[in-house]
Amino acid sequence: MDFSSKLLENAVYEISQLPGIGKRTALRLALHLLKQPKDQTSALSNSLLKLREEIKFCSNCHNISDVVLCEICANPKRDESIVCVVEDIRDVMAIENTGQYRGLYHVLGGRISPMEGVGPQNLTIDSLVNKSKEGIIKELIFALSSTMEGDTTNFYIYKQIEGMGLKTSTIARGIAVGDELEYADEVTLGRSILNRVPFENSLKLG
Amino acid sequence: MDFSSKLLENAVYEISQLPGIGKRTALRLALHLLKQPKDQTSALSNSLLKLREEIKFCSNCHNISDVVLCEICANPKRDESIVCVVEDIRDVMAIENTGQYRGLYHVLGGRISPMEGVGPQNLTIDSLVNKSKEGIIKELIFALSSTMEGDTTNFYIYKQIEGMGLKTSTIARGIAVGDELEYADEVTLGRSILNRVPFENSLKLG
Ligand SMILES: [Zn+2]
Ligand SMILES: [Zn+2]
Repeated sequence: MDFSSKLLENAVYEISQLPGIGKRTALRLALHLLKQPKDQTSALSNSLLKLREEIKFCSNCHNISDVVLCEICANPKRDESIVCVVEDIRDVMAIENTGQYRGLYHVLGGRISPMEGVGPQNLTIDSLVNKSKEGIIKELIFALSSTMEGDTTNFYIYKQIEGMGLKTSTIARGIAVGDELEYADEVTLGRSILNRVPFENSLKLG
Repeated sequence: MDFSSKLLENAVYEISQLPGIGKRTALRLALHLLKQPKDQTSALSNSLLKLREEIKFCSNCHNISDVVLCEICANPKRDESIVCVVEDIRDVMAIENTGQYRGLYHVLGGRISPMEGVGPQNLTIDSLVNKSKEGIIKELIFALSSTMEGDTTNFYIYKQIEGMGLKTSTIARGIAVGDELEYADEVTLGRSILNRVPFENSLKLG
């Protein structure tokens, strides 16, 4: 693309660095901002800068949070003996939306994927194993996506905590195999948490 | 959506103000930025702020430009007696890409659309009419999209400059009716400029 303006070219380049946004879409977005009041662009820019500079992660569950301990972990009504292990903050949002779950979470920050260069050390697995040793947690619910990487991650964690006497379960596969958790409807997702099965069962089936 | 962080919620809200970007996509983009080095977010934010604050529009053709007179208008090799009338800077980029056109442009900034509340006064039509009166321009090439709004805009301008002795033409409809100019391939678009037809002809056909 041949731009008549360096300013426009730079903006289009930076926007197109975002995943799933090509140069053409980036140009459309930049031209849209130019047609809107300046306030909209400054609000957008400032919200991104503030997010990136000031965001915190909960010291207990690694959920995104504005404070040291997230709202869920800080809530005395939540059952700290049950921990739902998820890949991503979007999975926490999806499960919270069901209103079915009263335990805590542990956000891994991804799943083990040798193809993408993600090993156990890139995830918050150590923190989960250390928490598990403290004896407060009685059950881990694996709620990772039902992909090869998800299964690998489940199994890796399972091996790490084996012998600690924790109950382990996976969410019931009411959710179609291969589907991402965050796209599941609330009823299906809520039910799959209530009907969770012992992790050992899923090993026998697989 | 229920967010665990106000910072994240704000960023998602601002991103989802962009056209064609829903809350879910906005969340995915915000989480992506959080995984990247801080530099990427500041580069993005700064490029948007700079674009919106410092952008100029060419005083002659209304093309986006970093200086008062755009590169095309400032180029003495371009033929200032021919002016191609387009809706949008993307159309300028598309036509420039063909390498077939050596005249100047006039960027209207849209097309007349009563449905969207866009009247002639919202476009740069007055500026085009005033330029036409100066006697330098010999030909106007209408290169608006072949939609009802495009045709209305062509006809409105045509009526304004009637009697000034200007030749008017429309780009040849090698481009499928209803298609946006910017998506046409370079060969088709280049040819449709070379094979342009007198505007009166298109009136008889229509
Ligand atoms: Zn937490
Ligand atoms: Zn110009």
